[in-house]
Amino acid sequence: MSTRETLAGSPDVRRTNLAVMLRHLHLDGPMRRADLTERLRLTRSTVAGLVGELGRLGLVEQAVAGTSTVPAGRGRPSPVVRPCPLGTQVLAAEVRIDQVEVALVGLGGTVLRRESRLLTDRDPQATADLLAGVVRGLLADAPGRVVGLGVAVPGVVRHDDGDVRFAPNLRWRDVGLGAMLAERLPGTDVQVLNDGDAGALAEHLRGVARGWGDVVFVEGEVGVGSGVIIDGRPLVGAGGYAGELGHIAVAGPAGRRCRCGSYGCWETEIGRDALTRALGLGPDVSRRTLVAALHAPRTDLAARLDKVAYHLGAGLAVVVNVFNPRLIVLGGLLREVYPRVSGEVRRAMLAGALTAPAEQVRLVLPELGDDAVLLGAAETVWQRVLLDPVGALGG
Amino acid sequence: MSTRETLAGSPDVRRTNLAVMLRHLHLDGPMRRADLTERLRLTRSTVAGLVGELGRLGLVEQAVAGTSTVPAGRGRPSPVVRPCPLGTQVLAAEVRIDQVEVALVGLGGTVLRRESRLLTDRDPQATADLLAGVVRGLLADAPGRVVGLGVAVPGVVRHDDGDVRFAPNLRWRDVGLGAMLAERLPGTDVQVLNDGDAGALAEHLRGVARGWGDVVFVEGEVGVGSGVIIDGRPLVGAGGYAGELGHIAVAGPAGRRCRCGSYGCWETEIGRDALTRALGLGPDVSRRTLVAALHAPRTDLAARLDKVAYHLGAGLAVVVNVFNPRLIVLGGLLREVYPRVSGEVRRAMLAGALTAPAEQVRLVLPELGDDAVLLGAAETVWQRVLLDPVGALGG
Ligand SMILES: [Zn+2]
Ligand SMILES: [Zn+2]
Repeated sequence: MSTRETLAGSPDVRRTNLAVMLRHLHLDGPMRRADLTERLRLTRSTVAGLVGELGRLGLVEQAVAGTSTVPAGRGRPSPVVRPCPLGTQVLAAEVRIDQVEVALVGLGGTVLRRESRLLTDRDPQATADLLAGVVRGLLADAPGRVVGLGVAVPGVVRHDDGDVRFAPNLRWRDVGLGAMLAERLPGTDVQVLNDGDAGALAEHLRGVARGWGDVVFVEGEVGVGSGVIIDGRPLVGAGGYAGELGHIAVAGPAGRRCRCGSYGCWETEIGRDALTRALGLGPDVSRRTLVAALHAPRTDLAARLDKVAYHLGAGLAVVVNVFNPRLIVLGGLLREVYPRVSGEVRRAMLAGALTAPAEQVRLVLPELGDDAVLLGAAETVWQRVLLDPVGALGG
Repeated sequence: MSTRETLAGSPDVRRTNLAVMLRHLHLDGPMRRADLTERLRLTRSTVAGLVGELGRLGLVEQAVAGTSTVPAGRGRPSPVVRPCPLGTQVLAAEVRIDQVEVALVGLGGTVLRRESRLLTDRDPQATADLLAGVVRGLLADAPGRVVGLGVAVPGVVRHDDGDVRFAPNLRWRDVGLGAMLAERLPGTDVQVLNDGDAGALAEHLRGVARGWGDVVFVEGEVGVGSGVIIDGRPLVGAGGYAGELGHIAVAGPAGRRCRCGSYGCWETEIGRDALTRALGLGPDVSRRTLVAALHAPRTDLAARLDKVAYHLGAGLAVVVNVFNPRLIVLGGLLREVYPRVSGEVRRAMLAGALTAPAEQVRLVLPELGDDAVLLGAAETVWQRVLLDPVGALGG
C-alpha cells in the first residue's frame, strides 16, 4: 500500500501545487491567471508566486491580456499563462512493423519536429541504431532542454528496464531495447513502453477519452495492441505487462494458431491477416489496399466480415465484464472495420457481456488517429516532469 | 483525473496523519509508540499528540509497557498503542445462496459477535427482512458506536446505490437492496457490494495477499465470484461492476448455456454444477458431499476433472494476460479442486498466457477461508473511517 508511505510526513505543499498548476497548463493550454486561481482554489498571490517559479524554470511564460489569443472573459483583465514549448521538450518514438517515427514534443504537447524512417531491418541492434541516429539528429537541433525519450513498441515490455519480452510481429523475444538505447544515447533518460499503453494514455489525456476515468484502448493492426486506464491511471500490473488483450482467447481451442503459440487469440481473429482473408485478398496485400477494400462499395462486405465482427464483439464482451469501462476506443484498422459492421459487433458484445456494465459502455473511434501512440510515448515522459517539476528540472 | 482536485489546495496534514496512523493500527494491531514513530517518520511529540487525539475519539488506547503482550523490543520502554474493538464497530453481512451471515466487527478486525441464518426464502423483501432483523439484534447489543453496515452479495452491484443488478444464483434482477435495507434500518449507513470484491479486499488486507499490490481473487461456488486489487486499490470500474470474471467466455459458443444467457462462461465450466457432473454426482447433491467426493481416494479423479481443470486454466490465462497479477487466490470450491489437478490447471494456464506475465504469477489458496467475504464486507465500511477518522466520527 503505497498510500501508507506517501501520506505520512509533511508534504511540500508548494511543490505539489507547482505540479498541479503545470499539469493544467500542459493538458489544457494557455489560460488566464484568474482561471488558474479558480481551478486551483488558491489565493491570487499564491498563484502569482507559483507562476513566477514555473517561469524561472523555463516552463511557462506570461503575456499581458489583450496581446493573447485567449479571450479575456468576464471580470477584470488577467495575464495569460502559457506553457513554453521551446523551453523544455521530450523525445517520443514509435516502432512499427515497417517504420519508426520519432518526434520532438514541447511542453503543452506541441510536436516541434517529426521524422519517419522505413524499418527495413528488424534486427534489434539495427533497429536501435536507426532509432538512436534519428534521436541524435533531433537532440542536436532541440531548442531547449530535453528531459527524456519514450519509445513505444508493439510488444510486451518489462516496466523496470525496458526489456521487450515478446514482440511477435517484430520477431523479438527478450530484447534489451532500453539498455541498448541507453548505451547509444548517454545522458538521455530512456523509457520503453507498450504501444497500446501509449495510445490509451494519449487518447485519455488529449483525445476522445479526455475526462473519462475508465477507458480501454484497442488498436488492430498486424497484431492487436491495447492499453487500459483505470480511474484515471494507467493499468500497469506487477511487471508492466497488464492490459495485454491481443492474446486473450476468443475462439477457443478450435481457433487459428497465433504467433504466441496459443490458439484462437483475439489478434489472430481480428488482426490484419484475418481481415485480408475475410476479404479474399492476397496475404501480402498492403495496408493501403486493405483499407481501400474496406471502403469499397461491395454488397458482400458485411457477410465477409461477419466472423471478424463476431470475434471483435466477443472480445469486447470480455473487456466490458472485466473492466466496466465508460469508453472503448477502437483504433488502427478497427477504426475502418467497426463502422462497417457495428451492428454485428454490438450484437456479439451484448450477447457475451453482462447487462449492467454493457449499458455503460460506448464504443468510439480515436481522435488522435495514427498519432496516438507517438503522443502517448511523449506523455509518458512528461508524466515524470508533471509529478514534480522542481525535482525533474532541478529548479 | 481526481489527483488534480485532491492535490491542490492546502491539505490538513494532521488529519491525514491521524488517518495513516489509524490504518497501521487497524491492520497490524497493537504496536509500541516508538514503532509508530518510526513507521510514520514523524517526531515523537507529534506521534504522542496524534495518539492522544485517536484516544479521545475512542479509537485507540495506550498501555504502559510491561503490561502489554507486545515485546518491548530494543531501546527504552515505550507505551503500547492498541485499537479499541469495543469503542467503534462495523456490521458486516454476507448473503449466500442458502444462508446469511452477519457479524459485528470491532476496530482491528476483531469479530465480536456473529450470527448465521438459513435463507429459506430468497424473495428480495424476505431476504431484506431477515437481514434487517439480525442486524437490529446485533445493533442493540453493540458495546460501542456502529459506523455502518456492509453487505456482500453474489451478484453485480451498482456502486452508487447498492442496487443488485443481476444475481443469477439468487434469481435476482434489479433488486434495490441498498434502499430496502436503508428503509428498514434508519440511521445505519448501508453499503452493498459484490462478494468477490469483498473477498479480494479481505485477502489483500488480512490474508494471503497481504502486502501484494496486484491480486486477483476467484471464488468458485454455484457461480464464480471474483475481485481484483490493482496497485493496492480495489478495481471498481465506471459503475462498480468491474472485475466480474465469472461470465467471461472460456469455452466458446460450443460451451454450456449459462444463467446469464450467454454460452461457455467460466462459471458454467468450473462452478458447482460442472463439478458435480464431472464427478458423476446427482444434480442436487450437497456441497458437503461434493467436497467429500473431491477428497475421496479415487483413481479416476484427475481424469474426471480434466475438462474442469482445462477451463480453470484457460480462464486463469485471461486473468494473467489482462491483469499481470502477482497472486491469484483460488477460494471456495476451487480451494478443494486446485490441489487435486494443479498440474493440468497450470498447463492450460501457461498454454494460453503470455510468458512474461505468467512468470510472475503465483496461484495460492486463501488464508481466511470461508470468512474472507464477510471480513471484506467489514473492511469496506472501515475504509471510510480509515480515510478520515475525524470526519467519519465527528471528533
Ligand atoms: Zn496469441
Ligand atoms: Zn454467464
